Amino acid sequence: MEFHFEVLKTDPSGARLGRLTTPHGVIDTPAFMPVGTAGTVKGLTQQALGDLGVQILLGNTYHLYLRPGHERIRQLGGLHRFMSWPGAILTDSGGFQVFSLAELRKVTDDGVVFRSHLDGSEHFLSPEKSIEIQQALGSDIAMVLDECIEYPADHARAAGALKRTTEWARRCRDYARAHVETSTTPGQSLFGIVQGGMHADLRGASAKQLVDLDFPGYAIGGLAVGEPHALSIEMAAAAAEHLPKDRPRYVMGVGLPEQLADYVGCGVDMMDCVLPTRNARNGCLFTSAGRVNIKNAIYADDPRPLDERCSCMVCKTYSRAYLRHLFQANEILASILNSHHNVAFFLDIMGKIRQAIAFGELADFSSEFLARIETGEP
Amino acid sequence: MEFHFEVLKTDPSGARLGRLTTPHGVIDTPAFMPVGTAGTVKGLTQQALGDLGVQILLGNTYHLYLRPGHERIRQLGGLHRFMSWPGAILTDSGGFQVFSLAELRKVTDDGVVFRSHLDGSEHFLSPEKSIEIQQALGSDIAMVLDECIEYPADHARAAGALKRTTEWARRCRDYARAHVETSTTPGQSLFGIVQGGMHADLRGASAKQLVDLDFPGYAIGGLAVGEPHALSIEMAAAAAEHLPKDRPRYVMGVGLPEQLADYVGCGVDMMDCVLPTRNARNGCLFTSAGRVNIKNAIYADDPRPLDERCSCMVCKTYSRAYLRHLFQANEILASILNSHHNVAFFLDIMGKIRQAIAFGELADFSSEFLARIETGEP
Repeated sequence: MEFHFEVLKTDPSGARLGRLTTPHGVIDTPAFMPVGTAGTVKGLTQQALGDLGVQILLGNTYHLYLRPGHERIRQLGGLHRFMSWPGAILTDSGGFQVFSLAELRKVTDDGVVFRSHLDGSEHFLSPEKSIEIQQALGSDIAMVLDECIEYPADHARAAGALKRTTEWARRCRDYARAHVETSTTPGQSLFGIVQGGMHADLRGASAKQLVDLDFPGYAIGGLAVGEPHALSIEMAAAAAEHLPKDRPRYVMGVGLPEQLADYVGCGVDMMDCVLPTRNARNGCLFTSAGRVNIKNAIYADDPRPLDERCSCMVCKTYSRAYLRHLFQANEILASILNSHHNVAFFLDIMGKIRQAIAFGELADFSSEFLARIETGEP
Repeated sequence: MEFHFEVLKTDPSGARLGRLTTPHGVIDTPAFMPVGTAGTVKGLTQQALGDLGVQILLGNTYHLYLRPGHERIRQLGGLHRFMSWPGAILTDSGGFQVFSLAELRKVTDDGVVFRSHLDGSEHFLSPEKSIEIQQALGSDIAMVLDECIEYPADHARAAGALKRTTEWARRCRDYARAHVETSTTPGQSLFGIVQGGMHADLRGASAKQLVDLDFPGYAIGGLAVGEPHALSIEMAAAAAEHLPKDRPRYVMGVGLPEQLADYVGCGVDMMDCVLPTRNARNGCLFTSAGRVNIKNAIYADDPRPLDERCSCMVCKTYSRAYLRHLFQANEILASILNSHHNVAFFLDIMGKIRQAIAFGELADFSSEFLARIETGEP
């Protein structure tokens, strides 16, 4: 299947109901993408992902490059085949992880020298190298390498990173075009990434520069880095305003359940976040009544399902008392079930958001959802 | 359903094909029972156990007594309901774990004083207490408390433990009968346990004494404690010889894949073992060509299924290279998939053993199976 995006309906809020076609299947948007860092969404089998209706997941270029290595994955037929995942995959550029490393050595216009968190070995990530890796992985959607900056960052700092990001985006695009045959997934797409820190003018400028480079989709990066949520939404809107209506928009690394609809309201079509799986492993569960810390003793004798409004396998099958016991006993099944529910919960929200857009009622959905979370009544 | 056992066919070797009916379903015997220590078979969801065709699993009284507590499980409706497992459950008496504890304090004719491995708190386990706990758990099959001894143990030591075991078996039986109404599973059965160390005369004497107490089934305990396999089989046979043909026989805590048919050949109907799940978590996988240590670098680029003769979900879906990557990256999915395969492998052996008995060809099955494991060709 050839990469293709259609907007099926637009809500009064600006939210879009859409359909994204990739070489590995169709994705209903707005879509939430679970994070499969090292070729696995932690705690879930690929069978479970399928049962949950996951259509696209995210793989981390940095982790897969270091282990098991992108050339190994290429030899084994690409990431889909390596992990036996028939659905779509989006890979990040590796930049976010590299810029987050304490052992980051040096950033130049050429790229970034960094040390592996696994063995301290030195590596060089350039725009071209990032695309080479992502072509070996054969994701359906690859991302350009961008310069990720700290928050807060002043206008000059953000403008400098933006400039480099645009230049790297051009180099990624050119390298991907020149080496299109080497991808293990024919028809792989490449998205640009809007940067610009928390400066609306820079977000607009970044978007315009990327649009000139003509990507089939656009991400908005550098959000959810510590800024207030309202500012995050403001920046997403400032970027989206300058992005073409017929291309998918992806806000990277967001968000909390109660924030998802806000990004969607900015006209965002895709999101990814490690929260559902990471929090699950720590016993923090998302429910329609807000967050549940399952290790709390109040759940020890509670026979009720985790979330009575949730129809996932976990909530249909197990009690809070059992989930609490598994967590206390440090059982593997705690991670399995908690991850399953949290991912199901995020996917369910996105399903309800899509339904609300279809009926032109996203604002109503958001206010009802928030009211329930605040009152704590599932 | 009322507890009931039928022998459907007997193989020339002495192996029996049977059908055990319990309050939670029918079990095809000979049966392998995965171990669900703390209310979960480590690494497997209850859904996966069902998919694998598990008909009965084992729960550990010692662990469940300490955490989450048997009275809590009673309040929550018993162990089946607590862990949402509709199939049959057998619970051990807690004796084996208690006798294995370093902090074991004192054994008297009354029972055993021990300290919890979790918090050092002091507890007392008597025959009556063990049944009280198992009635709260509501297993389909409960076990009498027995005195487990070290290996090797001389004749006098083994004879002393045997005497106490018989007396405890009588007390367990009497307590269970007197308190039958307090079990969370109506129709719960109680099995006696043959002891006697590695002394054939004592094994015979123990069996006869237990038969006089008239249990609906008999276990053979104190095997696989370090003795040579041939001696283990000799002891199982010495016990089985004196057990009634119309009652199920259960050898506790065995064994390796290549040993299972030997116990079955002694007329054994049930076995349990932690090996498939424990070894799985250490990357030791059982295959038709012998054991595979999946962390070995030779598997890093190996696109083949773990065991080409295995039709489990893992072998149908994933490559050795992927399994090796997951293990190296310490991913939860490594434990999930490795446990799934190993349990599937043990269950598959038992299925083939049942088929071989049905055709009167158990000896042929064993020699073919062993030949394959020794040549290392799956």
